[in-house]
Amino acid sequence: MRILITSGGTAERIDDVRSITNHSTGQLGRLITEEFLNNQAEVDLVTTSKAVHPAENDHLRLYFIESTQDLVDTLERLLGQNQYDVIIHSMAVSDFSYEQSFSEEVFLSRLNHVLEDKKYPLTKAEVRQLITESEETQAHKISSDTDHLLMVLKKTPKVIQRIKKIQPSAKLVGFKLLSDVSKEELIATARESLVKNNADFVLANDLSTIDNNQHIGYLIDRNWQIIGEAKTKTDIAHLIFKTIRTEVN
Amino acid sequence: MRILITSGGTAERIDDVRSITNHSTGQLGRLITEEFLNNQAEVDLVTTSKAVHPAENDHLRLYFIESTQDLVDTLERLLGQNQYDVIIHSMAVSDFSYEQSFSEEVFLSRLNHVLEDKKYPLTKAEVRQLITESEETQAHKISSDTDHLLMVLKKTPKVIQRIKKIQPSAKLVGFKLLSDVSKEELIATARESLVKNNADFVLANDLSTIDNNQHIGYLIDRNWQIIGEAKTKTDIAHLIFKTIRTEVN
Repeated sequence: MRILITSGGTAERIDDVRSITNHSTGQLGRLITEEFLNNQAEVDLVTTSKAVHPAENDHLRLYFIESTQDLVDTLERLLGQNQYDVIIHSMAVSDFSYEQSFSEEVFLSRLNHVLEDKKYPLTKAEVRQLITESEETQAHKISSDTDHLLMVLKKTPKVIQRIKKIQPSAKLVGFKLLSDVSKEELIATARESLVKNNADFVLANDLSTIDNNQHIGYLIDRNWQIIGEAKTKTDIAHLIFKTIRTEVN
Repeated sequence: MRILITSGGTAERIDDVRSITNHSTGQLGRLITEEFLNNQAEVDLVTTSKAVHPAENDHLRLYFIESTQDLVDTLERLLGQNQYDVIIHSMAVSDFSYEQSFSEEVFLSRLNHVLEDKKYPLTKAEVRQLITESEETQAHKISSDTDHLLMVLKKTPKVIQRIKKIQPSAKLVGFKLLSDVSKEELIATARESLVKNNADFVLANDLSTIDNNQHIGYLIDRNWQIIGEAKTKTDIAHLIFKTIRTEVN
């Protein structure tokens, strides 16, 4: 069985000294990888240098990425080169990448420049232009000489939605992480993501039920059924492996 | 000799899953700590769990922080409890902390709401209110359902400027890191920071001259003289120790 796993969290560079990072440690992705390696799978693991990694293994290849764009490039390359039985996308991907920053003073002057010509109400296109049109030069390191900074972030592509377009025959396991919602909302949102991402399974989990000793997860299949429930990261890794083994064989 | 060292980089929490982090690894702070420990100093090291740490040592106490506010609280407590001969502030401190985010849609509606009453040109106070007045509820996890996000950041207090106010008799070593500027600009900016921060020494360095094998640094004293030049992190640690030993004895 040949598997592609993503694990850890992407980081989006702001300037030479700062990034927007994801708290994900890669623990769960490491356990999933180990579960498959212990059961004779060949694993390609896409992860970050900051995430925790499985021990070296002849059946494991590591690919390191940092930003969402790196991840897109690496996945498209791997999916183009290799045929996978299963793709398990547990990496926490930044929803937004950095575009530019304005001090409140610069923003005020840009806004007033727009208001010279435009009348109330401003349109969405006018505000879009106000926040996205580039300053001529962006500094290597953002100046700290202002009380408030406005940082404009841009939505990143939905990486997971590309996977089945390239390899429709591979089984795809997605993850849906919410924070402090009801079980009903978690399951409903996870089901939506299953459809949007054309995934075969989704593991639904909530930050408020994750700590050092537990990690509650619900595995949902493409019929929207909850086919398994796990209480720890190890349970989740085992649940995903068990489910996939039945599917693939 | 009793020393307080800060090392690593602060992280500012955005929501339950994201932070703005600093790339600093804490390597230089670790080497400085080791240099002093090897020369019979007692070291209190304020750092982060993600930074690299010196080996355990009977003469070393570690204090872990995450955000700039944590750092301020910890430094004020330590400076209140203990009398230090020297304080070496090598930690990379976030210039800004997270306040709130608006989708471009929400921002447009807020802006138009202001423009209902206010005429061109808007004042700085009006823009300040537009970006800082809170939304009623801030989400645990920012919704990704918008093409552009406006993130409002607020300037953090200048931690280093508080140090000499609490312990005027301690020698203070600051750091000034710029990115890709001329040596003249680097030295001039470092000299300014020496005065502003009431530091006794400042180590000036530039990201573009730092890699795995080198780390160019200039040590400047309170007479604005460059009293030493270093080519590696180990050199810098040694230069600071040598200079401090002469000062304190």
